[in-house]
Amino acid sequence: MGDDGERVSFQTCPEQYRHWRLRVDGEVATLAMDVAEDGGLRAGYELKLNSYDLGVDIELHDAVQRLRFEHPAVRTVVLTSAKDKVFCAGANIKMLASSPHSWKVNFCKFTNETRNGIEDASEHGGQAYLAALNGPASGGGYELALACDYLMLVDDRSSMVSLPELPLLGVLPGTGGLTRVTDKRHVRKDLADYFSTKSEGVGGARAAAWKLVDEVVPRSKWDEAVAARAAELAAGSARPADATGVKLTPLCKERTDDAISYRYVRAELDHDRRAAAITVRGPDREPPAGPEGIDADFWPLAMTRELDDLILDLRTNETGLGIWTLRTQGDLALVLAYDKLLLEYRENWLVKEVLLYAKRTLKRLDVTSRSLIALIEPGSCFAGLLLELALAADRSFQLDGVFTGTGHVAGPAAITVTGLNTGLLPMGNGLSRLATRFFGDKKALDLVIGQVGTALTARAAAGLGLVTFTPDALDWDEEVRIAIEERASFSPDALTGMEANYRFAGPETMETKIFGRLTAWQNWIFNRPNAVGPDGALRKYGTGQRADFDRNRV
Amino acid sequence: MGDDGERVSFQTCPEQYRHWRLRVDGEVATLAMDVAEDGGLRAGYELKLNSYDLGVDIELHDAVQRLRFEHPAVRTVVLTSAKDKVFCAGANIKMLASSPHSWKVNFCKFTNETRNGIEDASEHGGQAYLAALNGPASGGGYELALACDYLMLVDDRSSMVSLPELPLLGVLPGTGGLTRVTDKRHVRKDLADYFSTKSEGVGGARAAAWKLVDEVVPRSKWDEAVAARAAELAAGSARPADATGVKLTPLCKERTDDAISYRYVRAELDHDRRAAAITVRGPDREPPAGPEGIDADFWPLAMTRELDDLILDLRTNETGLGIWTLRTQGDLALVLAYDKLLLEYRENWLVKEVLLYAKRTLKRLDVTSRSLIALIEPGSCFAGLLLELALAADRSFQLDGVFTGTGHVAGPAAITVTGLNTGLLPMGNGLSRLATRFFGDKKALDLVIGQVGTALTARAAAGLGLVTFTPDALDWDEEVRIAIEERASFSPDALTGMEANYRFAGPETMETKIFGRLTAWQNWIFNRPNAVGPDGALRKYGTGQRADFDRNRV
Repeated sequence: MGDDGERVSFQTCPEQYRHWRLRVDGEVATLAMDVAEDGGLRAGYELKLNSYDLGVDIELHDAVQRLRFEHPAVRTVVLTSAKDKVFCAGANIKMLASSPHSWKVNFCKFTNETRNGIEDASEHGGQAYLAALNGPASGGGYELALACDYLMLVDDRSSMVSLPELPLLGVLPGTGGLTRVTDKRHVRKDLADYFSTKSEGVGGARAAAWKLVDEVVPRSKWDEAVAARAAELAAGSARPADATGVKLTPLCKERTDDAISYRYVRAELDHDRRAAAITVRGPDREPPAGPEGIDADFWPLAMTRELDDLILDLRTNETGLGIWTLRTQGDLALVLAYDKLLLEYRENWLVKEVLLYAKRTLKRLDVTSRSLIALIEPGSCFAGLLLELALAADRSFQLDGVFTGTGHVAGPAAITVTGLNTGLLPMGNGLSRLATRFFGDKKALDLVIGQVGTALTARAAAGLGLVTFTPDALDWDEEVRIAIEERASFSPDALTGMEANYRFAGPETMETKIFGRLTAWQNWIFNRPNAVGPDGALRKYGTGQRADFDRNRV
Repeated sequence: MGDDGERVSFQTCPEQYRHWRLRVDGEVATLAMDVAEDGGLRAGYELKLNSYDLGVDIELHDAVQRLRFEHPAVRTVVLTSAKDKVFCAGANIKMLASSPHSWKVNFCKFTNETRNGIEDASEHGGQAYLAALNGPASGGGYELALACDYLMLVDDRSSMVSLPELPLLGVLPGTGGLTRVTDKRHVRKDLADYFSTKSEGVGGARAAAWKLVDEVVPRSKWDEAVAARAAELAAGSARPADATGVKLTPLCKERTDDAISYRYVRAELDHDRRAAAITVRGPDREPPAGPEGIDADFWPLAMTRELDDLILDLRTNETGLGIWTLRTQGDLALVLAYDKLLLEYRENWLVKEVLLYAKRTLKRLDVTSRSLIALIEPGSCFAGLLLELALAADRSFQLDGVFTGTGHVAGPAAITVTGLNTGLLPMGNGLSRLATRFFGDKKALDLVIGQVGTALTARAAAGLGLVTFTPDALDWDEEVRIAIEERASFSPDALTGMEANYRFAGPETMETKIFGRLTAWQNWIFNRPNAVGPDGALRKYGTGQRADFDRNRV
């Protein structure tokens, strides 16, 4: 929101939840939505009927994260409602209608990421999600359910699933709904079309026959059926029965108007130049001997948590900073030592969770609407996990040679490709950042893979196509300054559109379709008078007045 | 444009071209751009430097079509400029800046379709396109070149390729540019990023090294080199050396405010209900015995040409008609007889061209921003080629039983799946409409394929999932009326967004990425004040004033 004062914080913990109840019972956890009507993140709307705003979603995101790290034994998560007559009414309309465009877009992006995180938990983390729809699931409420593996719906006259965004609000089921209905649940497009124009939704046997849910169950058999399905879903999981989780302790974060700093991550906020200078520090100690030594201080985990929080903070609270520069700093050998551990124990459940979390955080960077410029300088440690930052960047500069003068002692900057860069941290399109970079050029990709483990100074890295520009010390400051100033002079919207295209060469997946195709159409509609103008549907909803549309088709 | 009077016509022929020169010389044709500055489709702008508007593109589309049907011997098309100092400066900015949003979007859509048509000619029609860039190719000019198989650029100081949309206009290279650079030409994303922010572009050896062009050639060797490459590209083609082409004779079209009619296709325009009622008639005679009997009157070709023209006319001139109903009428046996011929001779060059043209026309329907409702009534002939219309529709109604009363003599409506429906007419996503419909449900697809050749009345068709609703005669009028009225009451923008998502379940291709991801982002930007507001970049271009941006990132 930026302007209206209070910054949004993404840090929370179950003890502080206002909207969710988390209960863990052996291999089944229950996450029950119980939104506090007066608990909106901003003033001006009431969160009735389990409708949600960003604050509700922040808690959900936190719960999903903790279930993975803190609860190794949990194999099924039952997502349900603690309210009697409703599962979830979706995003709060009054909140949406009164929010500026950038807030709506950022909110939807985070919501999408959280839902993708749920799917990541099922697909890779061994935690199945069961949507137990014990009442109506409308709009974003049904979209949330669509992120789950299995959908159960109470079979009564009032419990419907619905996507009423189009008929009631003139917008799209834009947080995955349109994509998941056809591409995940394989609902036929004509049925999907009818369903999405029918504001009252579909329930009972028809909902199951159309594949909108997997099963409808009479209320009399509900608890028993949900428990049975939860147990069935748990049976397939490879999560360890006897492991100890890692408690995600509070982050140490200092936040001022001009800087955000954590233990390993720091950002200087330059509002005049509209740029955030982000530096990620490498490990400050040797890695543990094996996975049993991993706790919340484990560098890859601690650093990823900080980076994740920083991305969310900057995206939400600093929309004026259009450029993020990405630097690293530290001991290359230590980064490689951690990389080695991660690679060696990648099948261990906890190491796997750390890698999957790093993957999700890097994906968050990929869909961030800021220009990313990597600055590879002497003293940096762009290797393996940290090299992904440079590969995620829109362009990169690597110093050719060294800085001279007082205080500059480090040798030439080098980057190192490791086994972590060749597939363990895929982008949303399913390819590694390297494979995306060299999409359609297998020869170039093979040459790079042949250099795994080699420290590559500027000319070698440029020769392999790993960095964009390699100025020497004489030109460095000027070239970097011009790149940033020029970038800051362009239309922020056009940059966002360009980056959203160039970052995703090659194949598309359900995830990239949601962030690319669906989100782009929703953003378009979120700018159209038919939705957000004074007579638009989003503004007229709940007033008793009808929207007045420009009927021409575009 | 609809409002400002004159309707746009998409019919032309080489003798009427004002902007292109077409020369055929054995197996090589040359299509030289020579835009008449005073030949704009609308008043208010001059088409300087081979910049183009819809009128220029209509002629290009016509030339590409005729080369395929009328010139079987042509195997390479050299796309070049007849002007001395420029290849093409892209879309005319003054035209874009002064056009309403819907015009911009429709113009870009047609431009995209024409470029996809060029790629279809190379990939499936045996006609390679060689872009001979004998001067600067900027913006849409370079995007046009990107649709070609091979790009040659004169190596001099002024001949650059460039995508200056972002830095100069605050919009995207939105007619395929951003997608083709990375996904087709495999330019690295960081180089692409730099290239697309550098308004002066890239030329010479760097343009080739970055893969922006395939070859740079000094002007002294230009003609010779182009001729040699054209001959090389021709060598791989399977087009027949000794065949006779089919002259695409003028369409017989009658156009009033309320109806458009051709020989086989007719549309009634109901402005009050905001609906166009389209009826496609089946063949009125037996098919010829073989391909040698094919001329411009051959029903599949004649009908497709009419349908193609109708789609373009309605899209451009009738933006207020948001719903198209699709009916067919005729002798099912005759449709099947033509289908049989098309299937049997599908390897014949001319039959292949007819099928590929039908494919392109049906794809045009898929990306049309109108709600499509198929109405399958007694007397209809939805089989094979014509069944695709029902499969392209957002929903379909098939009458269960017959209409009673005077004048109704036809038996129950039946639809028939044929060998044409299972892969010869793929959508942009690479799948047949049937495979897209049953995406992820192979069992349902197999059941349908098992019914090839069977006339399916309403209950059978609904059981197989081929139609949406099957009212009987008592309910038909009311159900159809309600469906149309309800659809007309919704936000046109939300419908466009929903349809653009639901119609493309499953995989994405470069083509669907261009129409989905890239176009959607461009449309978003085309609505943003940073581009089209009074201080936006598109409006300020050429005024000597700088754009004033809202710098917040969305």
